[in-house]
Order: sequence, then structure tokens, then C-alpha cells
Amino acid sequence: MVSIRDVAKLANTSSTTVSRVLRKKGYVSKKTEKRILEAMEQLDYVPNELARQLFTSKTYIIGVIVPDIAHPFFSQVVKNIEIDLYANGYKIMLCNSIYQSNREKDYLDMLRSHMVDGIIMCASSLDAKEYKKFKMPIVALDRFINKDIPMISVDHKIGGIIAAEKLISSGCKNVIQFAGNKHTYSPSQERHTSFEKTMLENNINIKSFELEHDMFEFEKYVDLISKTITDEVDGIFSVDLVCIAALHVLKRRGKKIPEDVNVIGYDGILLTNMNITTLTTVAQPIDNISTTVVKTMINLINGIKPADNHIIVPGVKLVEGDTTSN
Amino acid sequence: MVSIRDVAKLANTSSTTVSRVLRKKGYVSKKTEKRILEAMEQLDYVPNELARQLFTSKTYIIGVIVPDIAHPFFSQVVKNIEIDLYANGYKIMLCNSIYQSNREKDYLDMLRSHMVDGIIMCASSLDAKEYKKFKMPIVALDRFINKDIPMISVDHKIGGIIAAEKLISSGCKNVIQFAGNKHTYSPSQERHTSFEKTMLENNINIKSFELEHDMFEFEKYVDLISKTITDEVDGIFSVDLVCIAALHVLKRRGKKIPEDVNVIGYDGILLTNMNITTLTTVAQPIDNISTTVVKTMINLINGIKPADNHIIVPGVKLVEGDTTSN
Repeated sequence: MVSIRDVAKLANTSSTTVSRVLRKKGYVSKKTEKRILEAMEQLDYVPNELARQLFTSKTYIIGVIVPDIAHPFFSQVVKNIEIDLYANGYKIMLCNSIYQSNREKDYLDMLRSHMVDGIIMCASSLDAKEYKKFKMPIVALDRFINKDIPMISVDHKIGGIIAAEKLISSGCKNVIQFAGNKHTYSPSQERHTSFEKTMLENNINIKSFELEHDMFEFEKYVDLISKTITDEVDGIFSVDLVCIAALHVLKRRGKKIPEDVNVIGYDGILLTNMNITTLTTVAQPIDNISTTVVKTMINLINGIKPADNHIIVPGVKLVEGDTTSN
Repeated sequence: MVSIRDVAKLANTSSTTVSRVLRKKGYVSKKTEKRILEAMEQLDYVPNELARQLFTSKTYIIGVIVPDIAHPFFSQVVKNIEIDLYANGYKIMLCNSIYQSNREKDYLDMLRSHMVDGIIMCASSLDAKEYKKFKMPIVALDRFINKDIPMISVDHKIGGIIAAEKLISSGCKNVIQFAGNKHTYSPSQERHTSFEKTMLENNINIKSFELEHDMFEFEKYVDLISKTITDEVDGIFSVDLVCIAALHVLKRRGKKIPEDVNVIGYDGILLTNMNITTLTTVAQPIDNISTTVVKTMINLINGIKPADNHIIVPGVKLVEGDTTSN
């Protein structure tokens, strides 16, 4: 490996002078600087990034923990986070937790060992006290970790009301919804509470089922849903992937969409639009969410805390597809 | 920050002894070791990973460069690569090149600065001489970079023949295929050569179009394809995403699938199975590809070069869906 001493020798100067040029600190004559830069180029000298990190205690890396990068919602979020972090001079270390808390813990231990400047959590299955050990900035997406850690989400309560109102205006009388599991608190659960409340206020029959649905196992969804949808159901609400699975089940039963059953998704992942029958969905503004996550992280790194640790991103909205009546 | 000296002080021993326990080298009595471990726990001591890296010159991080992590093929590949690398003690730094060579160059410069132990390239738009500067292990997926860099791919030639034979047995007489752009050499182009050759040998009319299709811009595909598919076309071959776009175009024209037009995709991404009309596809064995990429990388890190720098992963196969006749 080429060292500063090699550069100094070729440029006929001292290591201290080379170091000054590298750090852009202290006086070096234009003539000497030119000789040093030429020597660096000739030797293909690369400053040792690790040594620099040790010196500055910064790595310019942000750890991003997602349950499953193959899940379209998370792959879109990570894409946008990476673009925004890159614009701020940061790179991402991607951690797929795959819902195993031992993997999450492994990653967190590694992250604690000064390998990243901050962590973006899009998954959390660990006990809150594990996070208390962290001195570094953490930002959580749709996950409540503890009151000291900023949490970003859309207004899921409004999202649930939008979905309910759409099914009501489409004339549904017997609706079901599939909610995520409740073993970790997420504000996204509020969409199901507000959906149910709106239905009850309008005297619509409503049944709610809990479903482990963050894992990208399509066939499993199809099986589970198949056992749950009875013949009188005329309206379905869940995240996009579950709704697409529901459409398969309904198709097999010869149901007409939306004449027999209205289906409304949540998330607004790209593939709602790619199904031949496009899915009506309550879309989350993935671009805005990612931008807010990154902005909050950069602020925390610079010592600026948000005024309120629950940051609500506006912009959740109805995108009409083929699966609901007008 | 808690230091080794703090641990030594609390454990009533020397820094050297603490260091022995950390490095698991040299004799330390059981009793002293226990006292040191207890002190570490009490102080919540974390070994400085950066210092360790500087010492060992290893980061246990592999850079993974993909064009677009929101593209379902790449998100599935990255998911599997991460799982396999994790099992080998490595983490991944994810780089979204988004087809801009300046971003790719930025990442490569960072990677050269001793921040990663190797690079997995699933995208490459840079001049081959840029890669000559690298001393570290590089493995390329479906991209020819230069003859010294191992390249992993399936047998795309066979893949093209499988697709052609399926359309021929379905009775197609006027087929078109959409190929990727040819500005970087990829073995995946061979599927289009072998597809065309098989069609010509069987006296089937075949037209080939070049399409920029690695970018996940669905609406753009729909537009492009709409201008290209004429009324006599009865068979279409391209990657899955383009075929799904083609199905949208055909639906708008009132075409029956597969009675009027047979459509066969390539890749076998999860959503071929999630469309209400499931797409027939030539599936790549994404698990095996990822495992081979990681195995080759770990071998390179350990100084073991592959016998042949073009490593062909077996297992490309036909998966029948709703879009071809039996």
C-alpha cells in the first residue's frame, strides 16, 4: 500500500507537508502542493479512510434495518433513503432483519461498535431497553421504540378513514379487514382502529383479523385469506400485498370485482398499478417519508432534535384503481 | 467513551490483560477473566471496531452495487446475498447506482479507500480501466467487466431457447422480443440471440427491439411497447416487467391471452405469480445465483480464484402461467 511517506519521498518534501495538503490545513506553497498532488496521482495514492474515520470518529455510514428488502414497500423506501443520504454525503449499510431478533441484535451490536453514524429502524422486535444503550442517533419509521427516539409516519388514522369512506360510498355492507400483528407497537395500527370505528358509526358489519403480513410470502397470504373470506363479504381492506392475494382468492371463486366485492389496499406500492386489475389503494407518500427520515437523521447527527418526536408526514391519499366501484 | 483502561481499573488489573481477553490470546486466569468480563458489562464497554479494522485491515463489509434496489429482480438478489454474507460474518453496504456512472465512480472511490473487503457489481457503466485500479476482490453478476474479474450468470443461451420453444409449441407465427440495451456487454444478451436463432430455424417471423429496460419505470415501458406491438403479433418475449407492461397494452386493445397472443417473460420475479393473470416465465434460480456470488466472493477474499472466470449457475427453467397455451 502506498503511504504518505512514499508520496513525500517522490515529491521531495516531508510527510508533515503532505499531511497538510491532505487535511487542507496549514501553509504549503503552491509549487510544493502541485508537486505533492502530482506524486499522489503518479503513485495512485488513496488516503486511508479507516485512519481518517478513527481520527474524526465519523464513518459517514448510516445503518438501515428493514424486515425484508424484497418487500416492495421497503425496497422503495430504501431506494429513496439511499438517494437522499447520498446527497448528504452518507452511504447506507443495509440490514435485513427478517423478523429474527437475534439478527437485529447482532446488527445493533455491530452498529454500536462505531461503525455507523446513525441507525434508521424500519423493523424492531427487540425489547426497548436494548435501545437505551445507544448513544448514537436513531430514527424509526412506523415503529415506536421509546419516547426519546423520533418516529416518522403518515397520518394512518386518516388513511383508515379514507379507506372506510371509499368502501361505504361503494355500497359495502359486510366488510373485513386484515391488520398486522400487534406484538410491536406501530402507529400504522391506527388505520385499522379508525377504519373499524368509521364502519361502526355507519352501521356497517365489520370483522377484523390479525395477520402476520410483513413477510413477503404471497402463497401463505392466499391460504390464510382463503379460510377467512366468507360468501357474504362485499368489502376488503388491508395492505396492498394482502389485497392482491385476496383478489386471487376471489378470482378462483368466480367473484366479479368490483361488482361482487370491493377491495381497497394500503401503501401504494408500484405493483398495485402493474396488476392487470389495478388495485385501488390508500397510498403513502414514499418519497416524502424517505426525505423526512433522512432530514431527521441529518439533524440528529448535527445535534438538532425535532420539536415533537412523532413526526407526521402529510400526503396519504386515495388512488382509484379497478377494484372499487365509482 | 469507555476505554480499556477504565475496564482494567474497575477489574483491578492491567490494560494488557484486558487486551488479552479481548483478543482471546495469551494466558489470563479464569478468575481475572471473569472480573474483566463483569467490568465490561458494568461499564457497557464496546470494543472500538474502527481501531480493530485498522489493525486487521479488514472491515467485514462488502459493497453491493445495483442499478435500482426497487427493481424486484435486484431486491430479491440483494436479499439473498445479504443472508448468505451474514452467515459468513459479512455485512453489506448498498449502493444504488441508478445508471449514473458518476455515482458508480463515487462509490468505487469510497470502496478503494479501504472501507470494504470486496465489491459485488450488479451494474457497470464505467470504462473497464477504472476497475483495473482495484486491488480488492470484485465479483460481477451478469456483467462482463474484464477478463480478470469473475462473472456469474445463468445459461442465458438455454433460457432463450426454452422461451422460443414454448412459443413455437404454442403455435406462434409472428413473434417479437424486447432486448436490453447493448452499451455494456452482458451474457444476458445471449438469450435474445438464441431466441432469434431458434425462431429463424423454425421459419417463424421474428422482430427484435432494443429497449432500455433495467430502470423500474413501468409507465415508460407501456408507452414504448404500445408503439411497437402490431396487430399480427401473436407471441412476445422479454423480461418479466416488460411482459407485464405488454399485458396491459394487449388488454387495452381487447386481445385475449393466450388465445390471441402468447406472452413469455424472463427472470421469474415474485410478482409474475402475483398478477391476477399469472405470467409464464423463464425463471432464473435467484437463490442459487446469490449463493454462488457470495461463495465466489468469500473464496476471492481467501485467495482462492475460480478455475474459470465465467461461472454458469444451472437451473434456468420454464414456469408456466396463464399467458401461454398448453
